[in-house]
Amino acid sequence: MTLALSTTLRTPFTEAVERTRKALSDQGFGVLTEIDMQATLKTKLDADMEDYLILGACNPPLAHRAVTADPQIGLLLPCNVVVRRDRNDPDIVVVDAMNPQLMVQFVDEAGVREVADAATAALQAAIDSLSADE
Amino acid sequence: MTLALSTTLRTPFTEAVERTRKALSDQGFGVLTEIDMQATLKTKLDADMEDYLILGACNPPLAHRAVTADPQIGLLLPCNVVVRRDRNDPDIVVVDAMNPQLMVQFVDEAGVREVADAATAALQAAIDSLSADE
Repeated sequence: MTLALSTTLRTPFTEAVERTRKALSDQGFGVLTEIDMQATLKTKLDADMEDYLILGACNPPLAHRAVTADPQIGLLLPCNVVVRRDRNDPDIVVVDAMNPQLMVQFVDEAGVREVADAATAALQAAIDSLSADE
Repeated sequence: MTLALSTTLRTPFTEAVERTRKALSDQGFGVLTEIDMQATLKTKLDADMEDYLILGACNPPLAHRAVTADPQIGLLLPCNVVVRRDRNDPDIVVVDAMNPQLMVQFVDEAGVREVADAATAALQAAIDSLSADE
């Protein structure tokens, strides 16, 4: 399995973020957390890096089923979606969603497998809808 | 490898959270995000569950090295630390930290391996310090 479900967009960064939020929302994922890694590392370390945002996406019914099946699964929640400028081509914005199949690598519970499959389908649909808009 | 570095505390929940924050801070981890899963699932689904908090812990120098080594690594950042009441024994609070060795399962970069080792040592020290206080 790969770590990420990914696509690339040729749009301004802020527009890529808005489109990603909309695509996630259309698949039932709210954004519970947001980390501006570029700003955080500038503030904490005075280090420069490309635009880089980590969105913590959560589909409440799926999250509920997952923690009910295994309380440790919160270590892999919310499902991170990274929106970042391509380091090698500044015209490209990369959107990476954490592949929920990751959960199954560590928790071998039928309930978790079902949630991972449903979450993978929903995130892949969100990624595909971004690609289709291009 | 296991998904979690864990310990258990016999203290009130809010005290367990404060002690966890202090232990993380002592090891150079700030808490960038906080999700009260119990409150979130109550609000969104009217579902009841045990006390359950997900802290997003970040050690900025380690995070910087990790994203420099591989920009996809943000999918596994920040490092989640779950503080939760034991479902089977309400006198016990469980603290699970995501095992940073998880990163190495998916990204085979020397830079990421070094960061994973340093982060594992620091989080294990935080968990050990909580256990030692008991």
